[in-house]
Amino acid sequence: METTQLAQAPRLEHDFLGERLIPENVYYGIQTLRALENFDITGIPLKAEPLFVQSLAYVKKAAALANRELGVLDATIAEYISRACDRVISGELDDQFLTDMIQGGAGTSVNMNANEVIANVALEMMGHQKGEYEFCHPNNHVNCSQSTNDAYPTAFRIALNNKLVGYRRALEQLADAFAQKGDEFQNVLKMGRTQLQDAVPMSMGDEFRAFATNLREELLRIDDSRHLIREINMGATAIGTRVNAPTGYAELVTEYLRDLTGLDLVLAGDLIEATYDTGAYVQLSGVLKRTAVKLSKICNDLRLLSSGPRAGLNEINLPPLQPGSSIMPGKVNPVVPEVVNQTAFYVIGADLTVTMAAEAGQLQLNVMEPVISFALFTSISYMTRACHTLREKCVVGITANAQHTEQQVRNSVGIVTQLNPVLGYETSAEIAKEALRTGKSVYDVAVTERQLLTQAKWDEIFTFENLIRPHFIQ
Amino acid sequence: METTQLAQAPRLEHDFLGERLIPENVYYGIQTLRALENFDITGIPLKAEPLFVQSLAYVKKAAALANRELGVLDATIAEYISRACDRVISGELDDQFLTDMIQGGAGTSVNMNANEVIANVALEMMGHQKGEYEFCHPNNHVNCSQSTNDAYPTAFRIALNNKLVGYRRALEQLADAFAQKGDEFQNVLKMGRTQLQDAVPMSMGDEFRAFATNLREELLRIDDSRHLIREINMGATAIGTRVNAPTGYAELVTEYLRDLTGLDLVLAGDLIEATYDTGAYVQLSGVLKRTAVKLSKICNDLRLLSSGPRAGLNEINLPPLQPGSSIMPGKVNPVVPEVVNQTAFYVIGADLTVTMAAEAGQLQLNVMEPVISFALFTSISYMTRACHTLREKCVVGITANAQHTEQQVRNSVGIVTQLNPVLGYETSAEIAKEALRTGKSVYDVAVTERQLLTQAKWDEIFTFENLIRPHFIQ
Amino acid sequence: METTQLAQAPRLEHDFLGERLIPENVYYGIQTLRALENFDITGIPLKAEPLFVQSLAYVKKAAALANRELGVLDATIAEYISRACDRVISGELDDQFLTDMIQGGAGTSVNMNANEVIANVALEMMGHQKGEYEFCHPNNHVNCSQSTNDAYPTAFRIALNNKLVGYRRALEQLADAFAQKGDEFQNVLKMGRTQLQDAVPMSMGDEFRAFATNLREELLRIDDSRHLIREINMGATAIGTRVNAPTGYAELVTEYLRDLTGLDLVLAGDLIEATYDTGAYVQLSGVLKRTAVKLSKICNDLRLLSSGPRAGLNEINLPPLQPGSSIMPGKVNPVVPEVVNQTAFYVIGADLTVTMAAEAGQLQLNVMEPVISFALFTSISYMTRACHTLREKCVVGITANAQHTEQQVRNSVGIVTQLNPVLGYETSAEIAKEALRTGKSVYDVAVTERQLLTQAKWDEIFTFENLIRPHFIQ
Amino acid sequence: METTQLAQAPRLEHDFLGERLIPENVYYGIQTLRALENFDITGIPLKAEPLFVQSLAYVKKAAALANRELGVLDATIAEYISRACDRVISGELDDQFLTDMIQGGAGTSVNMNANEVIANVALEMMGHQKGEYEFCHPNNHVNCSQSTNDAYPTAFRIALNNKLVGYRRALEQLADAFAQKGDEFQNVLKMGRTQLQDAVPMSMGDEFRAFATNLREELLRIDDSRHLIREINMGATAIGTRVNAPTGYAELVTEYLRDLTGLDLVLAGDLIEATYDTGAYVQLSGVLKRTAVKLSKICNDLRLLSSGPRAGLNEINLPPLQPGSSIMPGKVNPVVPEVVNQTAFYVIGADLTVTMAAEAGQLQLNVMEPVISFALFTSISYMTRACHTLREKCVVGITANAQHTEQQVRNSVGIVTQLNPVLGYETSAEIAKEALRTGKSVYDVAVTERQLLTQAKWDEIFTFENLIRPHFIQ
Repeated sequence: METTQLAQAPRLEHDFLGERLIPENVYYGIQTLRALENFDITGIPLKAEPLFVQSLAYVKKAAALANRELGVLDATIAEYISRACDRVISGELDDQFLTDMIQGGAGTSVNMNANEVIANVALEMMGHQKGEYEFCHPNNHVNCSQSTNDAYPTAFRIALNNKLVGYRRALEQLADAFAQKGDEFQNVLKMGRTQLQDAVPMSMGDEFRAFATNLREELLRIDDSRHLIREINMGATAIGTRVNAPTGYAELVTEYLRDLTGLDLVLAGDLIEATYDTGAYVQLSGVLKRTAVKLSKICNDLRLLSSGPRAGLNEINLPPLQPGSSIMPGKVNPVVPEVVNQTAFYVIGADLTVTMAAEAGQLQLNVMEPVISFALFTSISYMTRACHTLREKCVVGITANAQHTEQQVRNSVGIVTQLNPVLGYETSAEIAKEALRTGKSVYDVAVTERQLLTQAKWDEIFTFENLIRPHFIQ
Repeated sequence: METTQLAQAPRLEHDFLGERLIPENVYYGIQTLRALENFDITGIPLKAEPLFVQSLAYVKKAAALANRELGVLDATIAEYISRACDRVISGELDDQFLTDMIQGGAGTSVNMNANEVIANVALEMMGHQKGEYEFCHPNNHVNCSQSTNDAYPTAFRIALNNKLVGYRRALEQLADAFAQKGDEFQNVLKMGRTQLQDAVPMSMGDEFRAFATNLREELLRIDDSRHLIREINMGATAIGTRVNAPTGYAELVTEYLRDLTGLDLVLAGDLIEATYDTGAYVQLSGVLKRTAVKLSKICNDLRLLSSGPRAGLNEINLPPLQPGSSIMPGKVNPVVPEVVNQTAFYVIGADLTVTMAAEAGQLQLNVMEPVISFALFTSISYMTRACHTLREKCVVGITANAQHTEQQVRNSVGIVTQLNPVLGYETSAEIAKEALRTGKSVYDVAVTERQLLTQAKWDEIFTFENLIRPHFIQ
Repeated sequence: METTQLAQAPRLEHDFLGERLIPENVYYGIQTLRALENFDITGIPLKAEPLFVQSLAYVKKAAALANRELGVLDATIAEYISRACDRVISGELDDQFLTDMIQGGAGTSVNMNANEVIANVALEMMGHQKGEYEFCHPNNHVNCSQSTNDAYPTAFRIALNNKLVGYRRALEQLADAFAQKGDEFQNVLKMGRTQLQDAVPMSMGDEFRAFATNLREELLRIDDSRHLIREINMGATAIGTRVNAPTGYAELVTEYLRDLTGLDLVLAGDLIEATYDTGAYVQLSGVLKRTAVKLSKICNDLRLLSSGPRAGLNEINLPPLQPGSSIMPGKVNPVVPEVVNQTAFYVIGADLTVTMAAEAGQLQLNVMEPVISFALFTSISYMTRACHTLREKCVVGITANAQHTEQQVRNSVGIVTQLNPVLGYETSAEIAKEALRTGKSVYDVAVTERQLLTQAKWDEIFTFENLIRPHFIQ
Repeated sequence: METTQLAQAPRLEHDFLGERLIPENVYYGIQTLRALENFDITGIPLKAEPLFVQSLAYVKKAAALANRELGVLDATIAEYISRACDRVISGELDDQFLTDMIQGGAGTSVNMNANEVIANVALEMMGHQKGEYEFCHPNNHVNCSQSTNDAYPTAFRIALNNKLVGYRRALEQLADAFAQKGDEFQNVLKMGRTQLQDAVPMSMGDEFRAFATNLREELLRIDDSRHLIREINMGATAIGTRVNAPTGYAELVTEYLRDLTGLDLVLAGDLIEATYDTGAYVQLSGVLKRTAVKLSKICNDLRLLSSGPRAGLNEINLPPLQPGSSIMPGKVNPVVPEVVNQTAFYVIGADLTVTMAAEAGQLQLNVMEPVISFALFTSISYMTRACHTLREKCVVGITANAQHTEQQVRNSVGIVTQLNPVLGYETSAEIAKEALRTGKSVYDVAVTERQLLTQAKWDEIFTFENLIRPHFIQ
């Protein structure tokens, strides 16, 4: 696709508000031009989400095919629209999608950007000049049987669905990396902690496997979200009454879209509701937030466990990635968990943006959908990258200080819990209190001094195996 | 249960921090007393959630039965613990559960409140005095094979599950009320609006049925939540390693709990993870938030549609409930939608509380679970009442101003959309523009003045039936 | 005030919606009765905030006095209204203020609750029966020259102002307690940490004094808030146009309110704006949130610093308040910081509620003010109690493990930073790296092995004094 | 500054983690290279905030000057560092600042990016090769007497301060535009509305002037924020103990920074606290949020007031900017208020990000400051553009439908309020009720039918002047 700036004369386009000159080399038209002038908030153009651009073309192609089949669109025009869509799907026209990611108009500018680009590409392929819309019109032909209010959310949902595939994979790989560390650390004995206080011993392998479990649950939630957002409202047109859409169109265009995208899309049962409903976005945003909460908790743990090196817990070592300080020599910081924490805070904030935008819907439409799309696309991108970064730059390189953590267990008071079934809670508490008061070990107090259990019983209870995987001994 | 204040001497109880006098008439003990002194934030005691008190007793009873079966608890003591639990389940001991809804200690005070009350009730039934814990001890017997870290979240989840039943019913009834209005308003023709601008005609019945659809989707999300929170971690004890729990106990106690509660509870596969995971709470809170967002949107719509009476949309009338102003005579306000909006804002705020508390978990436990329980219980209560209020005090009494809304449609410019398939987008836009400029009707411009279509065609397109349920006419 | 239930016949009251029987013994009337029926969300009645009840009476009294002076209210009626207000101010009528804290109607029910109680109390003092409103009418007399839309927010602001006094004191006392600990720990040498990694040495006294500094800044922000919320809109009546208020009334009633409350209240310059503006509430909520964020951070630090006792940082000891576990004997947890964290999360959630309510204002009024008042009153109460709890139950009893923390410093690698000015960043980094690799001390590497500086230089740099309060040595 | 890619050999740089090849043409060094590899989340580089780059150079220059004066930095090196900083300040090196806006390490990568670029620019100006750090070293010389922990937040605060200047101006111009519309609409009579119900008449001019008042209050809050963020912690070095900074340095470098920036910067009184405190950011974020809440409310109002054109309030007309629909001909939407609403939701979400990041600070540092800076810079940019857009594309072109709004007033029931002082609340309520029931006018019921007041009295009360600016008439 040639988009170089030639010294050609601009073309004149008009809409019902007036006329404007459009640079000859661009494929978008007057309505996109107006949008570029009207909306300058984020500076981030639509093309930053190529999956969205692609999805818009899927929608337009499916509509053209359905319209042709139902006899409301000339077969030749439909054919060229379809071919133009293929080129947009291929990504070669991405640079023509310049509308700011946040706009007013409930996505009309995005829809018209697609309509105009596709019309002009089709026109050129038909041998016409760009702008000769009598042969292929952005509204009458490309947008035929559609409204922004069905085309936009449908494209948005297809794009989300596809974008979630990469995110899901990144998250799964991260969970796998934790699971692998779990296996590696299986025989590392360490103190478990509740409320930051020494609790009872455990295997570091179990700790890392739990991270994997924790994240793998999220995969199921992503699947739930993908299930919800596969519901589309094509054929609803303006407000769900199907005005201006031929009979059977909604069902037919959905079928074409299923074929084109390979996604199991379904037509909403209540098109009035589906046209304004943002429930699926709120749900998806909530799922992203939940994963962010978990990732942040896990990164907090990684930072705690690697604290030190000498005046901290010092249980694990994160791979050193860069000098940690401009003033403190030799300092190395847990920079990757830190950046993941920050990503999580961003995503949690973006969830609030989605929430407020969803609440602001009125009557037959939610006009705030563009900021919802901006928030969701950004969150998914950032989360995907955060998962990759955490796995590659951190998790796979973690090592354990097994000697140190085992010594902490042996030296702990927390092992007294394992005497409960033998001595009862109150006697055990007495031993713990005495050990803490004097600085002595539980063994010294319980066996040597008070002779509350024999050396043999002690040895039975406090084997390595029984510390790391306790069995019930009375 | 007699709890009157007799002039009996208080009893002396001790724990490993020292001794305290306990009023003779109370069934809780020294640890509850300390909790009452330590925690005074909300002033709202545990008994404000009777389902939670009940669930704690279910947990204690199931544990006693499992412990007896596995031979780690004396059969007689187990029997009396079980009977004491039955009395707590009945609600007669609710006034002994006084711990503040928010506490430190990750629920230990709540768990000990239950352990102490049950121990003392059992003691009395056994013929002992309260406080004679050698015969039935809060920790050794009532809490046998348990930790706060499995007993507390299990009871919390059972209580949530049961509390959601009432909420779900309230929401379903509300959805039904909207659906019924949908049927009632089936033949009320009105303007649909997008972006607060006149769009195309629709049936008011469809609008109200869409509210029903919108809320009924929430019922499925509640079911999802109930599915997730049925996963429990009994037998995990302190941190999920099953320390001090006899072999087979986790599975057995889960079975007993299933029987006692009638809920399809399942034991978590990874008990380490399950002991700190708060994912199910975040998910449930997200579901509550999503419904709150939808209810708020619907109430915003009800307030918009009933705005007026003369300088507003004035499409519907809400039942007048109270004089609306202390100064403006005759003013009646949409007070019920307003209070539901406010409830929604509360619930959305509470979701943030849950989010932050979930993120703050560290290592093997999330110590912030009490504020999560406070937030969730409160949100479910408020939402349940809001649903009842909205249905009973508002929705069932809504009436439509059908004449007014039909007149608005006939007088609108928006009906021009239905000329698109006949005249094309650009000609239709010209007609709209002219009508708006001159104040004339679409009919006047299109038929009378410009004669763009015949009277017959006009009549075919603009029948009442075709306005309210448009069919495709080219 | 006698409010016992006598077997008297109920009285009949009416409003423009109809008639209702009112129990004879209650002082509220038909509109409050309707409010009780219409609003049942939180179950928390207005009387839970006695300062709000009191402030409503201040407003009503000031209005009566101003109305009398301006000749629009009969002097005798004004006198009795004023006396009735005094009784409400004294708190003896608190139990008549039963409206739910969240209601629709923008506070009309609260305002009418006050109007009705005051009218009936006045009537009895005048020798009439309750309900004989021709002699003293809730609207015509008690509410004279007022609307809910000026009376309610004015009372709300006065109540907030007074409630902040106690909160400010609690926060200041907490800051003082930290400062005192700062003095006590002045000579405790410890490792400072950044990013949870050992950084450079510091005085524990400075660490605790920084907590004091951090919180004292909040006192100034509270003062800012009190400054903003002293702006009131009395005389604005319905929407700020002063309709139905006599000339000069707004200024006069403000003066009376200043006298009655002792607060430096000012009349808003733009009454239209002041009647819908919620900016001062958003600002106050933001200040509460900021303090909550700081308190949460401080409590996180206290929990980190007291982590252990053996496998944690173990720098400080929090006073033991209660056994920490139902299963782990001898465990003591940082329960007070934990409950303060949770309070902070509540307050941060409540700030979101305020934000959403503020955003939902429309045109000439923000109808969501009741949930704003609920959120702010609750947050201030919880924060006040959290400050008291943290100080009394935790901060004043903290002790330091000075020997342990000094040993950590001497054993640390972080002290190498102090060699930077002498040896340069790169050589110092080499020493740090070698120390970490071999487990040796910085001294061993720098002085013994590599002889990079003399013993005398080492001794000059690493005095206790220079570690705890470093001076620049090149 | 030439940064073209020549075919020169890359240079070898090292840090204590190893060696790396650096492209010869770039001015940053090994630590920036590591940062580029380690952090890829947002894809938005530091250079996107040129004011931040500039501020880093101010800090480095001030430090060099202070270090020279205190004799800890060679005069020649200081001179070249200073000149290199001037070039960075000019913006010519912006393309060398590529670190992702969100990174781990608490800003170390940003600080080192600046140190390395300045060192290499200085080296070239001194006649050396890039990378010959023995002559000018990023850490030893450029970062002399500094740590990331004082240099980064100081630069951040200077940048915020400067960025707020443009935002404040945009907001002020927007407020002015509303005020001007207020004057223009002074004599437009319209119904005021509370709770979306017709209330009492008012001037549309007052309504628009109130928007101006509402926003002008925000200017003062911005000033408060700028006052708070002018406090810096230069000389605190690593954790606030001033380790490695020469005596008198903190005060001197602050003075130099004041001179260089023209800002009234002050040195924090408690450097330990200042080094970790994020209170000023939370406060600033809260101010941005408050303004966002107000802007959103105002835009909601503009959309409501312009709703229609026929089935809405239709009080005002927003300038038409683009066709509003791809399917509904002639539809024009309030696209600019819509995009401002969405911007507000973004900013409110970003405030939550800041809140969570602030709460996550630990011990002597808040490592989450980069995401705070990302959120604040983005919010200020978006808000600035939203203010410009709202003013230029919408407010200045608003027109009023004065005839329509006056007719609504004359036809309203709400004018009955003005009969209160004459007829009393109850009689007035009767009139209102009758008017609503029958559809008659207040005049018909009150004067014609019931003859409750004379024509003369009616005429006295209901003059245009008295409707638009009511005076008290009894």
